[in-house]
Amino acid sequence: MAENTAAAIEFARGNQQRFVEELKALLRIPSISTLPEHAPDVRRAAEFIAGELRRIGMENVRLVETVTDGHPDGHPLVYADWLHAGEGVPTVLCYGHYDVQPAEPLDEWTTPPFEPAERNGNLYARGAVDDKGQMWMHVKALESLFDAHQGKLPVNVRVLIEGEEEVGGEGIAWFVREHGGQLRADVVLISDTDMFAPDLPTLYVGLRGMIYTELEVRGARTDLHSGMYGGAAPNPFVALAQMIAKLKNEDGRILIPGFYDKVAAPSSDELRTWKTLAFDEERYRENQIGSRELIGEPEYGVLERIWTRPTLDVHGMPGGFIGAGAKTVIPAKAVAKISMRLVPDQVPAEIFAQYKAYVESIVPRGVEVTVRLIHSADPIVVSTDNPYVKAATSAMHEVFATETVFVRSGASIPVVGDFVRELNMPTLLMGFGLPDDNLHAPNEKFHLANFHRGIESIVRFLAKVGA
Amino acid sequence: MAENTAAAIEFARGNQQRFVEELKALLRIPSISTLPEHAPDVRRAAEFIAGELRRIGMENVRLVETVTDGHPDGHPLVYADWLHAGEGVPTVLCYGHYDVQPAEPLDEWTTPPFEPAERNGNLYARGAVDDKGQMWMHVKALESLFDAHQGKLPVNVRVLIEGEEEVGGEGIAWFVREHGGQLRADVVLISDTDMFAPDLPTLYVGLRGMIYTELEVRGARTDLHSGMYGGAAPNPFVALAQMIAKLKNEDGRILIPGFYDKVAAPSSDELRTWKTLAFDEERYRENQIGSRELIGEPEYGVLERIWTRPTLDVHGMPGGFIGAGAKTVIPAKAVAKISMRLVPDQVPAEIFAQYKAYVESIVPRGVEVTVRLIHSADPIVVSTDNPYVKAATSAMHEVFATETVFVRSGASIPVVGDFVRELNMPTLLMGFGLPDDNLHAPNEKFHLANFHRGIESIVRFLAKVGA
Repeated sequence: MAENTAAAIEFARGNQQRFVEELKALLRIPSISTLPEHAPDVRRAAEFIAGELRRIGMENVRLVETVTDGHPDGHPLVYADWLHAGEGVPTVLCYGHYDVQPAEPLDEWTTPPFEPAERNGNLYARGAVDDKGQMWMHVKALESLFDAHQGKLPVNVRVLIEGEEEVGGEGIAWFVREHGGQLRADVVLISDTDMFAPDLPTLYVGLRGMIYTELEVRGARTDLHSGMYGGAAPNPFVALAQMIAKLKNEDGRILIPGFYDKVAAPSSDELRTWKTLAFDEERYRENQIGSRELIGEPEYGVLERIWTRPTLDVHGMPGGFIGAGAKTVIPAKAVAKISMRLVPDQVPAEIFAQYKAYVESIVPRGVEVTVRLIHSADPIVVSTDNPYVKAATSAMHEVFATETVFVRSGASIPVVGDFVRELNMPTLLMGFGLPDDNLHAPNEKFHLANFHRGIESIVRFLAKVGA
Repeated sequence: MAENTAAAIEFARGNQQRFVEELKALLRIPSISTLPEHAPDVRRAAEFIAGELRRIGMENVRLVETVTDGHPDGHPLVYADWLHAGEGVPTVLCYGHYDVQPAEPLDEWTTPPFEPAERNGNLYARGAVDDKGQMWMHVKALESLFDAHQGKLPVNVRVLIEGEEEVGGEGIAWFVREHGGQLRADVVLISDTDMFAPDLPTLYVGLRGMIYTELEVRGARTDLHSGMYGGAAPNPFVALAQMIAKLKNEDGRILIPGFYDKVAAPSSDELRTWKTLAFDEERYRENQIGSRELIGEPEYGVLERIWTRPTLDVHGMPGGFIGAGAKTVIPAKAVAKISMRLVPDQVPAEIFAQYKAYVESIVPRGVEVTVRLIHSADPIVVSTDNPYVKAATSAMHEVFATETVFVRSGASIPVVGDFVRELNMPTLLMGFGLPDDNLHAPNEKFHLANFHRGIESIVRFLAKVGA
């Protein structure tokens, strides 16, 4: 078995450049799930991956059309399996996503977001690390194992790759709920996270959840001239500003009644571990944020704020005049895109209800407000008390020659809640991104050394689970 | 003379349809002064008007290149004169503007903004009433008088038409300051306002001024993922909301220290007159605003609020993600376009200094703010104690058979301050728009009956001044 693993590693090393070129081809497809005009690209990306899974030897490869709110109009899941490793051998469910965030602002990319470019050992493109590149590590680890095992795998594997992760993952949630039996596995492997520091293997054991909402404020029936009507006509932006200022104070405290009631503190074990991490707040501010000062609740450290505390952000405020120069309009309506990150044991549906009730209680004079829930995700803490965690840390030790750290992430991966809640499967968040990979931002990248080390880690992990 | 005036009226009536078709040709030119890509269209509109002024018999017709901040890069003025009416005959300076506001949101126009369309006795197009249509009344009144007087006019006339009214009029301000001697006249006639009610001739005796500003807030160095950094990275939109909420309270009171210090109350005469106007607040709310409720300082009536009280509006908040769906970005920067309407005796430069100092004192943690002044205009009250006011009210009485009302406008016409302050000329704000003309909004229109009655009123006014 060790011999086969060594052969798989050798195969992966011998094919590094081809693996990267294939990934580039996938990255050229602008599979932006939130923009309806890119729906054909999203499907094209799904078909690209399905074709490759078939080629390497996976079976039952198919696109699964999903149903959202009773309508079969979502982006497809890619499903595949290989289940011939024999009685008693565990099954690993490899999850990833092939959809990406929008690339705006386009003018801040050094090279275009959908023309992958290698610079300084990094591959730059939208989706390079989130999550096409990391999902591709799974596919390439499987290919390497198939090659080393003469068309077989040392472990049973299911692959499930979704196209709606960046828009809330409602399709996969429906599939897990309605057809979870088809996903039975002993452990879920997800590579959609980063490492706490370069060369420091990392498992994420907690994720924040979220609710993503829109507040739409309507004032006058039509856009009005601010000279003729200013002082009598309600201004939707002013109303939104007044409401947002009542949602979060300058200390980062969210003012929605009941919002913090179910927030659970991290365990003392976790807090102790995090204190041992090499974390320099000033260096983090300078290198990762670049703002004059960090913000947030002053009574918590930065890692606690981003991993264990809920927060609220405004992502954009469409409406009115946004061109260069001056237009003296009082817009008829304006929107604020507002999301809240949630932590255990907050419940998205409860938080949305509290938020909606509070917003409706603070509507300024003269305007009407509609509160919309765009999507939500459960906050999650995953168990570390299982043999798969041991296999993962051991595999990564062989590659990185150092112990794995257990941390949390402030981000949300909606499907993790579905796997844990609906299917009760242990879930490994074993990712190989770096903290400065510019996720969701211009110049997203994947450090290519980590792409290759990730493949080797996954080869070793799968071999160990099957051993 | 009465005979010539009757002949001019007859000429105007006989050419109504041609006048409208010419106006449509001018309205097809998208002379949007604030958008650099339309600069050639702005110049084309200027040349169109200059050509017509030459054709009807005006002399010294030329485009005047203006200088802004020492750079000759503004939109040109159109100048013309005819000064042979003889010794002792007064000179009238006819002012108008040929630039227009942007037409967004385009999808709310019933017919495209730059394809003029007649419906129900109205002409719909961007600029129909503000100010191409009203400026064209001047040109057509002059043409009618030239025809009736065999190529002469009964009065000395200068024409000055600018292309930067919608962007603050810096070019004309420079020209008035530096070359005001070339504009010597006894009275200025401006048709860029509306009537208080249909069929009610109206002279505006006060205008609000304004400062138009941008607040740019910068947080992180680049756009960041709100999951990974939310709770530590500053959010420019949240910061802007917190600042805007401190600029204006929910009663419409502006909170900038010193802001109201120089606000002068209207005269008791004015207040008495306004009480006699047929103004139904509920009907105004329903027909002109269409919001659930009117806003503003509760201790003032609506007309006082929009005519005599300063106010603050937000016109748009560029930055972040404004597409459909969800993008979980903490934008590196965001902007708020904020203007304040000013009233006598507020001074724009002083108000901007107060605003800037106050904004800089309320900057939330973690962000940096730049305050920019885009343009400004003086608030103004014009004198009614001169013979030209009598000529105007008498001319309009002949057309409308009713007495003129004297009101104020909440809007700003920057050049009025320049004429009054620099050249000390009495200024008549005699316009023929209607309150529901949708200025600066989709479906801007001009009621064609008023276009023609306006031409007749101006013919009679010019004849009376020359009599």
